[in-house]
Amino acid sequence: MIKIGIIGATGYAGAQLVWILHNHPKADIKFLCSNSYAGESYSDIYKNFSGHMYINCVSMEEAYSQLDAIDVLFLAMPHGKSFDISKAAVAKGKKVIDLGADFRLKDITEYEEWYKVTHQAVDLLKEAVYGLPELNREKIKGAGLVANPGCYPTASILALAPLLKNDIIDTSSIIIDAKSGVTGAGRSAVTNNLYCECNDSIKAYAITTHRHTPEIEQVLSGVSGKDITLTFTPHLTPMSRGILSVCYGKLNDEYSESTLLQLYRDFYKEEYFVKILDAPPETRYTKGSNMCHISLRVDKRTNRVIVVSAIDNLIKGAAGQAVQNMNILFGLNENTGINFPAMVP
Amino acid sequence: MIKIGIIGATGYAGAQLVWILHNHPKADIKFLCSNSYAGESYSDIYKNFSGHMYINCVSMEEAYSQLDAIDVLFLAMPHGKSFDISKAAVAKGKKVIDLGADFRLKDITEYEEWYKVTHQAVDLLKEAVYGLPELNREKIKGAGLVANPGCYPTASILALAPLLKNDIIDTSSIIIDAKSGVTGAGRSAVTNNLYCECNDSIKAYAITTHRHTPEIEQVLSGVSGKDITLTFTPHLTPMSRGILSVCYGKLNDEYSESTLLQLYRDFYKEEYFVKILDAPPETRYTKGSNMCHISLRVDKRTNRVIVVSAIDNLIKGAAGQAVQNMNILFGLNENTGINFPAMVP
Amino acid sequence: MIKIGIIGATGYAGAQLVWILHNHPKADIKFLCSNSYAGESYSDIYKNFSGHMYINCVSMEEAYSQLDAIDVLFLAMPHGKSFDISKAAVAKGKKVIDLGADFRLKDITEYEEWYKVTHQAVDLLKEAVYGLPELNREKIKGAGLVANPGCYPTASILALAPLLKNDIIDTSSIIIDAKSGVTGAGRSAVTNNLYCECNDSIKAYAITTHRHTPEIEQVLSGVSGKDITLTFTPHLTPMSRGILSVCYGKLNDEYSESTLLQLYRDFYKEEYFVKILDAPPETRYTKGSNMCHISLRVDKRTNRVIVVSAIDNLIKGAAGQAVQNMNILFGLNENTGINFPAMVP
Amino acid sequence: MIKIGIIGATGYAGAQLVWILHNHPKADIKFLCSNSYAGESYSDIYKNFSGHMYINCVSMEEAYSQLDAIDVLFLAMPHGKSFDISKAAVAKGKKVIDLGADFRLKDITEYEEWYKVTHQAVDLLKEAVYGLPELNREKIKGAGLVANPGCYPTASILALAPLLKNDIIDTSSIIIDAKSGVTGAGRSAVTNNLYCECNDSIKAYAITTHRHTPEIEQVLSGVSGKDITLTFTPHLTPMSRGILSVCYGKLNDEYSESTLLQLYRDFYKEEYFVKILDAPPETRYTKGSNMCHISLRVDKRTNRVIVVSAIDNLIKGAAGQAVQNMNILFGLNENTGINFPAMVP
Repeated sequence: MIKIGIIGATGYAGAQLVWILHNHPKADIKFLCSNSYAGESYSDIYKNFSGHMYINCVSMEEAYSQLDAIDVLFLAMPHGKSFDISKAAVAKGKKVIDLGADFRLKDITEYEEWYKVTHQAVDLLKEAVYGLPELNREKIKGAGLVANPGCYPTASILALAPLLKNDIIDTSSIIIDAKSGVTGAGRSAVTNNLYCECNDSIKAYAITTHRHTPEIEQVLSGVSGKDITLTFTPHLTPMSRGILSVCYGKLNDEYSESTLLQLYRDFYKEEYFVKILDAPPETRYTKGSNMCHISLRVDKRTNRVIVVSAIDNLIKGAAGQAVQNMNILFGLNENTGINFPAMVP
Repeated sequence: MIKIGIIGATGYAGAQLVWILHNHPKADIKFLCSNSYAGESYSDIYKNFSGHMYINCVSMEEAYSQLDAIDVLFLAMPHGKSFDISKAAVAKGKKVIDLGADFRLKDITEYEEWYKVTHQAVDLLKEAVYGLPELNREKIKGAGLVANPGCYPTASILALAPLLKNDIIDTSSIIIDAKSGVTGAGRSAVTNNLYCECNDSIKAYAITTHRHTPEIEQVLSGVSGKDITLTFTPHLTPMSRGILSVCYGKLNDEYSESTLLQLYRDFYKEEYFVKILDAPPETRYTKGSNMCHISLRVDKRTNRVIVVSAIDNLIKGAAGQAVQNMNILFGLNENTGINFPAMVP
Repeated sequence: MIKIGIIGATGYAGAQLVWILHNHPKADIKFLCSNSYAGESYSDIYKNFSGHMYINCVSMEEAYSQLDAIDVLFLAMPHGKSFDISKAAVAKGKKVIDLGADFRLKDITEYEEWYKVTHQAVDLLKEAVYGLPELNREKIKGAGLVANPGCYPTASILALAPLLKNDIIDTSSIIIDAKSGVTGAGRSAVTNNLYCECNDSIKAYAITTHRHTPEIEQVLSGVSGKDITLTFTPHLTPMSRGILSVCYGKLNDEYSESTLLQLYRDFYKEEYFVKILDAPPETRYTKGSNMCHISLRVDKRTNRVIVVSAIDNLIKGAAGQAVQNMNILFGLNENTGINFPAMVP
Repeated sequence: MIKIGIIGATGYAGAQLVWILHNHPKADIKFLCSNSYAGESYSDIYKNFSGHMYINCVSMEEAYSQLDAIDVLFLAMPHGKSFDISKAAVAKGKKVIDLGADFRLKDITEYEEWYKVTHQAVDLLKEAVYGLPELNREKIKGAGLVANPGCYPTASILALAPLLKNDIIDTSSIIIDAKSGVTGAGRSAVTNNLYCECNDSIKAYAITTHRHTPEIEQVLSGVSGKDITLTFTPHLTPMSRGILSVCYGKLNDEYSESTLLQLYRDFYKEEYFVKILDAPPETRYTKGSNMCHISLRVDKRTNRVIVVSAIDNLIKGAAGQAVQNMNILFGLNENTGINFPAMVP
């Protein structure tokens, strides 16, 4: 059994992680850390665990003291908070999987510019591996610290990688218009996230300024071999979970829909978690699962391609992918504990 | 492996059943029958199964011809439709678990009065066992045909049984006010169930006439040893899943909340799927699971008890309980394949 | 034109009040007070007013200084906060309409017991008139201070008054099971009211302890002439607006549904805002309006009556009724500015 | 008073039209036509009108016979159904406002290609005026038949017109990513529009093939003076009402956000129904109103502009705009009966 510690266990991504690892046949949760709920029973906070789990949350201080008891540490915290505990865990030879943003951007200047924080673990950053298994599987295998991708980047990169790998679209033409459920905004008690402020309404936010922009650009630049700058617009949608990422690009040549769909099927043919559909995906068919659904259309009138991807932001966009990375790190079958389809409706 | 056939696989209860059995370690789905979708790939109808399942739906006619290939037949059909196929399956010595209403009411007159249908399998009805394991486990073990309880009855009976077993409330005083998600109304394309007719609105329906009323009365009368007639009011609530059943009864004596809570904890102490909470349950904490959460309050001012139970109507209220019954019939651990907590949020 | 001041203008009831009075042909808003947003433009907080209204919020201090400029003061504040400003306004001969709870309960002991606050305006309380026009119209006409009813009481009292006035049900048998939209919980930024904590889930809360209980009892006791103690269970429902109140009572005699429906039609025949429907009401048909829809069913099997009423909690349950009271106080047609039906869907 | 007939009164746009005209101070509804509900009381279908309106629906045949009794005929029907009744009404000298698509596209070939229907009123089409008052007010004044714009076109054209009028973006670079509430899909009883198929999920649909594409292109080409071909992607969003249209264009030069915002404020400075906001609009702030909210951001990194507009699809996107057109046709103040802000929350 893999012995596990989780920091940030009571946020939405943390709660999803607890759910998956609780059901995972090879995982053994050793501690759940939550500063706000330290000392409280986890199943009093998340009552779905009543009768299933008897663990009290520990403080950050206690978490440090229990690092020796685990094999892998998951971090599900706001950016800027992962530096010290990561260093401590890595120093003890523990694997670290960070669901936050602190180890995703390789360019420190870019990190500090977008996140307005000084990076305090530069050495660790150099070793960190970006944990998108579909593109990076081999590197993840030997990693000490895995930087788990953001939710929007996961959906958007998987949608665009086949096109960029094959030089099919103009790299200066990319626009990503992505829609997220409200869990994406976190569990903080702020007026904007109240039920009555979100219900029955949609909005775009952080237009041109969202921090996932440089992450998407960094990875897609790596895939394409060219420096990519793109436009990214996120939206808050009245649903709890799900991301739909709609990606636009100008085709370098004429392509039929069937040619491109085949190219996607080939590109992802070995992938358990990426499925190419004929019809445009709907987020509900991925909800509660680690699946990414992709389809595309060619707009012959404008010679653009529109690629649409759907994921569950808390699973393939966070906790599920983190466990996928854990499975890789520990030599398990990659879909162990995360092989279930979405539950519909 | 238990070989399985499902009739009515594309309704909401059917789809939930497919989901559970697909993930069940001892189940092997042999056929999925859906008259409306015969010949179509199941994963084209429910795209969550893309990449997970490659089965085409069969017609009812084909289902009959494949009865030899299975061990157990699940029926998820409207009332009045289960008679013939049940008889055929039982005649071949197959186990039958009927998620519909045709074998729940023991009194044929009552069945025909409430359901406006002539019962066409009276012999089978006599053998049928009501599949509420928490009350009926021993009988289920040897059953040939299990009548899986309705969703409202499951929530309501589990909420009231401890009180009635112990003669704590006036049996003439019972009122059940229950709230269901819209999956409870089925998947038929009718105007009333359109998104824009249900969203952001609640209504009571079938007041005094809902067909689950005699089912609840029959079982609770059995538990209490007295003939019970009660008032039952169901509601349609703007959510996909979930039932919250709020049950009112006049106390025969004075009882404290803690006494009654302890009585409930004792009553259900061996039960994996029933948990007694201190705080009133919320449906979300059972959503996607086979759990039933129960709590209660004593209204000292009026000497009433208010018991509240929450379930997922498609799981503990339908498909999950059906699999629980299957596990019992086949000697498996009762929670095999249905031991996961709710996924929140 | 009636000159108006509003205290608590940025809560949900306050915002609804501003909406109605902005559109009211005889109202002239003089100030909007909100301590949290003092100095900010109202249309920056509620952007629906962009281009419609150019008013900056004032502090409580400023509100005091502007009392001379108004004819009527509306208060939309948490309980315990209305004493001083009410006294100041009444002393200046201004009409006061309090949407809060401070002047509803005539029995001070009861007020202090349920609200855990010392009442600091006992003289004013004696003069205060309970502002449910359908029962209390004549008294409201000459009132100096109107205590606007709570949302649950409005729906529940209108549902039960005809039965109690006519001695049709056993006064000891009343159970009210009511369901509210999330605006009922207010606009405070607390975790429990976040979108992802409320979406797709229903719960009962404050069972046996909700503060609207004594208010309902006080008014219904007055109607019936007997002391009434009842059971009241409120619920939080995943919708923004609306209350559905389902009321149960034991019939003192045998009554047919048509007899009782006719009795209700007669009782409310002069009322613009109460309509008796044949079918059970749905909250959506009252949403955005000051209407109350009522219907009922007789459960012959148990000799109970089930009365169902629906209102918009922010309008007939708060701001709309407050304006109805203002119309009465100032001799206007009672439906002036609030005569529109619900907007569906 | 303007005497009014409505064809298609029980669809969602029709119901919204009835609501507005019922409250309109100068409108007198003479008949409501609905083939499916002919003979039924309108307030039995839409119970929000209980106590407010006593009109029975008439059949299409009866509608023809009542054309003499009206001044203006509103049509709210599927495309291909407006030809005959329009001709009959115009022949009698009645004004016609068509909320459907039959008279919007000036190019018959394009109409027949996108709508797969033969146009049967070509003469009338030549006289028809496109009813977007903000761009076309003068022509509307004298029109006999007004083609009321589609919902997506209204939001998208208002968002892009200022840029195109002023030659600010590359006309070949336009991408529109628009999100609609489910009322946009109409009131037909189809499985795809059921509550449980739409709730908590988002999808794109009709990618590259939506029929509003040529309508947007026709109008924007007229504004810009150049032939515009663009990419348009509509989405179905889990909310009842609202459209958010997010429009992308490549800037021809460098522009600051403040310059462009000022240009928009100038462009729409006389318009009651279009407001330019600093922050990105949210659909809820326009819900239930005839307002269009617009804001924009400049993406300096890619030299693109992102313009976001929000409307209520049933009001500014359908019935409200139709009444705005009626007001213009009959010389009323343009905002008569539609001057209310959105009701929030």
